[in-house]
Amino acid sequence: MTTSISESSAPVGDLPTVRLKPKANARAIRHGFPWVYANELVTDRRTRSKPAGTLAVLEDDGRVPLGLVALNPDSKIICRMLDRDPQATIDVAWFETRLRKALHLRERVFDAPYYRLVHAEADGLPGVVIDRFGDICVVQPNAAWAETLLHELTDALVAVTGVSHVLKNASGRTRSLEGLDDASAVLHGSAPEGPITVPMNDAVYMADLTGGQKTGLYLDQRANHAFAASLARDARVLDVFSHVGGFSLAALAAGAQSALAVDGSAAALALAEEGAKASGCEGRFQTRQGDAFEVLTVLAEEGARFDLVICDPPAFAPSKPSVDAGLRAYERVARLAATLVAENGTLGLCSCSHAADLSAFRAACARGIGRSGRRGSLIYTGFAGPDHPQLPQLAESGYLKSIFFQL
Amino acid sequence: MTTSISESSAPVGDLPTVRLKPKANARAIRHGFPWVYANELVTDRRTRSKPAGTLAVLEDDGRVPLGLVALNPDSKIICRMLDRDPQATIDVAWFETRLRKALHLRERVFDAPYYRLVHAEADGLPGVVIDRFGDICVVQPNAAWAETLLHELTDALVAVTGVSHVLKNASGRTRSLEGLDDASAVLHGSAPEGPITVPMNDAVYMADLTGGQKTGLYLDQRANHAFAASLARDARVLDVFSHVGGFSLAALAAGAQSALAVDGSAAALALAEEGAKASGCEGRFQTRQGDAFEVLTVLAEEGARFDLVICDPPAFAPSKPSVDAGLRAYERVARLAATLVAENGTLGLCSCSHAADLSAFRAACARGIGRSGRRGSLIYTGFAGPDHPQLPQLAESGYLKSIFFQL
Repeated sequence: MTTSISESSAPVGDLPTVRLKPKANARAIRHGFPWVYANELVTDRRTRSKPAGTLAVLEDDGRVPLGLVALNPDSKIICRMLDRDPQATIDVAWFETRLRKALHLRERVFDAPYYRLVHAEADGLPGVVIDRFGDICVVQPNAAWAETLLHELTDALVAVTGVSHVLKNASGRTRSLEGLDDASAVLHGSAPEGPITVPMNDAVYMADLTGGQKTGLYLDQRANHAFAASLARDARVLDVFSHVGGFSLAALAAGAQSALAVDGSAAALALAEEGAKASGCEGRFQTRQGDAFEVLTVLAEEGARFDLVICDPPAFAPSKPSVDAGLRAYERVARLAATLVAENGTLGLCSCSHAADLSAFRAACARGIGRSGRRGSLIYTGFAGPDHPQLPQLAESGYLKSIFFQL
Repeated sequence: MTTSISESSAPVGDLPTVRLKPKANARAIRHGFPWVYANELVTDRRTRSKPAGTLAVLEDDGRVPLGLVALNPDSKIICRMLDRDPQATIDVAWFETRLRKALHLRERVFDAPYYRLVHAEADGLPGVVIDRFGDICVVQPNAAWAETLLHELTDALVAVTGVSHVLKNASGRTRSLEGLDDASAVLHGSAPEGPITVPMNDAVYMADLTGGQKTGLYLDQRANHAFAASLARDARVLDVFSHVGGFSLAALAAGAQSALAVDGSAAALALAEEGAKASGCEGRFQTRQGDAFEVLTVLAEEGARFDLVICDPPAFAPSKPSVDAGLRAYERVARLAATLVAENGTLGLCSCSHAADLSAFRAACARGIGRSGRRGSLIYTGFAGPDHPQLPQLAESGYLKSIFFQL
């Protein structure tokens, strides 16, 4: 317990000290909660003047040190716990220890080096996301402290993984909350000339690591793609909000009769088509660009029917104020999509909305299915894969849900 | 909609009529909720006098028929919806239609005929569970109506699946709530001479279909066994509350260095050992009989460490009054088991308690891990597999949860 380390209020080493208010939940932090909210910290002028990303020692209101934190006076999450040891040194060796532990887990679970290597808080690197695509890593430093220590992080990443190229993706929505810019960069090696190939679930995907959404590929859906693929033999598959073909290419690789991918982005569909070629199944693959709601309506008018329909829309309910509208949008997707499912077919519906929990999302989907005049039983509930670990204290907000109904 | 069929209160065909009270939620039933509770039904002397399992037409309080139900005046679930069509005939052909739909789903998902073929309400056969083990089906008629129509059900089952043997397992705990006895029987063909072999997740299990727990094997854990196996290469595995070795044999088949199965039942462990032999991995397999809590304590005293520890205890919180004590027991299991997990190892914890929901179970596990002085991040949350479908209206109580922590 940290209480044995020091009872004094003197700063440990050269670091400044910040202190919890008496009303803050020091016990939760001792038990692993990784954040201090702005209203829980004594924020005098000295603290407010510190630059975003400053390292500091966090103390409870009795001046007992709780650990080493990264301070960001501009953020609602004013402190992020970096190390329970207030005397830790955050250097290349410190990053290497964290990265080795993260790599150990991924190498146990996956046969090939394509995975999320670091998933922020649960991998001990608050606000930092790192995806690995073979010889390339893409870093998202979504908290100020990581931006400050990006050089050390990059050196450690190269040392631990041996990758030749490290890219910085600064498109994360939370960066602006931390006062960070959106300038992406090459941190080590060079950027690939064009899209790269990524093997996953027996298919080959094309990922654009410099121009695409997120970091080029939705690695979090891998297990759910695999579940859909397990239902796909000889099936006619419809993949709505397809991005680069996550569900459809896995389904084709598993023996689907045909797959139609629908997305609003022509660039994403072009990558999906390239992926289908690379997977050797372009003859069974089609795309349709357009607004998903409109395409679903048109397909229904055409009398189209599919054995497996999957809808993986963008976050309709990213925050609490958008929950009601978001759930209505999920219900609408379910209603429109259910109409297109053949008798005894399956409907997969996904949500990546933090604010809509599993129970609310499931109910919205069931309502939508009911309004289409169908009934469904739930055959699968999936989340993000094991390369997206979560702290149990933050698990309630597990953002990705993927549920499949047999109609 | 059923409202168009008849507005009269005359019984449909020869069936008696039962009627909802005005306060009952007819809308939920119209939208797919499958049950009527005793306090929602007008129970005059005529209704109370009907034998358990009587078929009846259910009407709302305005005398509009809602469907054909099975009535059991002795049960808290006084009606179970059998068919939305109040004029349906419940005969062999009716069972065949339900069974063909259920079989269609399983044949799409599984390569071999070992699965739960019917999972009660969600497969349209309320209270009826049927497990298939190759050429043998085991029926659990856990509601009175199914006991009454067991002959028709058996005939349909043989016709649809072509199995040679159908056994009745009457050990279900809910049978007594329906006023049913616990006499098992052979319904068709004959009972196997001894334990049978069941291939699953690259291992071979031994299932005792006439003397064992449940119907001989926990088919619901198949996907969770597979996830554990994906972590098992070269690992030292501890399988606590192992039954016939569900987790440990899958782990050994996936390349685990060793596995130790712990269970209170010598008979279950003997089957596990037979399964290890049939899987060709008996040299890496050991068992220890005894109270799991005691064995966990002894192993800790011995300084034993494992890379993968899984605990799959019986339901500690089967009903609401037992929730608090049950959650304390789950916490205790987590605390004792976490002590035995090696650095960077994994702890899998399962609950088959209806009354303890995912959130409460996860919190209890995290507390237990914390009390052992360890910290864990959540890498997997799994439920029962797709051969255990659920009505979305009943999904909140999804009984099986399997969560894995990286320590």
